[in-house]
Amino acid sequence: MALEGQNGGAENGSSKAVTFSAVKPQLLVEAPKASDAVQFYKAAFGAEEVSRTMHPKRKAEQELPLILSAELKLGPSFILVSDLVNDSSAAVKTPATGFVICLETDDVEAAVAKAVSAGGVSEGEVSEGEVACCGGRVGKVKDPYGVVWMICSPIKTCADVEA
Amino acid sequence: MALEGQNGGAENGSSKAVTFSAVKPQLLVEAPKASDAVQFYKAAFGAEEVSRTMHPKRKAEQELPLILSAELKLGPSFILVSDLVNDSSAAVKTPATGFVICLETDDVEAAVAKAVSAGGVSEGEVSEGEVACCGGRVGKVKDPYGVVWMICSPIKTCADVEA
Repeated sequence: MALEGQNGGAENGSSKAVTFSAVKPQLLVEAPKASDAVQFYKAAFGAEEVSRTMHPKRKAEQELPLILSAELKLGPSFILVSDLVNDSSAAVKTPATGFVICLETDDVEAAVAKAVSAGGVSEGEVSEGEVACCGGRVGKVKDPYGVVWMICSPIKTCADVEA
Repeated sequence: MALEGQNGGAENGSSKAVTFSAVKPQLLVEAPKASDAVQFYKAAFGAEEVSRTMHPKRKAEQELPLILSAELKLGPSFILVSDLVNDSSAAVKTPATGFVICLETDDVEAAVAKAVSAGGVSEGEVSEGEVACCGGRVGKVKDPYGVVWMICSPIKTCADVEA
């Protein structure tokens, strides 16, 4: 019922094969608490910080620079922690829905097209993003159940590491 | 500031080493849409269903049996999809905060203790759970940033697969 609007072939998606190299939950916490949250995940779960990218738009009145994305290794997986910034690039707008799942793939356009053909709603254009989870191309798809999926090319430019 | 109440050693947690074998985002969708959601994730992202456990408490008036947990392989990772059931065993109560992250470990008690020593809040006792993400022992910790972490022993009893 939530899948109306598709025009056939949704069960198998588009014909183009898409593979994902990583699935990363991203937690968006009330700014500027992301730094505290990273410390908590280190202490609580033994997470290891592998990279941190700061938000480029630091406001003068802010005491702390904001975290665009901190990547933590947790067990065999990775999670991302970000300050929730209420601007146009934010994947979500409120901490109450403060998580997205980032999918990494080499073919962002095909992945977005397949998700849309299955009933997802693409939000915005695929673009070279200044977005929290990605350094490269990124598309955003909201699924019929309210979950936001960020479909990104693999991060290659997160050199701004502050361990 | 959110870490008050701890009594020392929080930065490094407790002394006992804890390792996690898996990190699985769990999406809790408005019941009974989990089955539809699974179909969507298959069509949209090429996810493969590896197991499905139904909710044992089927209500007479429900047309569809509810999904306690469906595990999907998505790229190299796993996600869980569940119907959000408003009962005492539910990890969260509303779709608006409808996700948790499941951490699998062989030592649930030690992992919960470490998370609590770092400032997390344990909710309920560690128990043999009928909970959505776990077949074995499970503890639940809410972190200072609002994220619910289910700390579980590895799933061993999810034989109720309906592909």
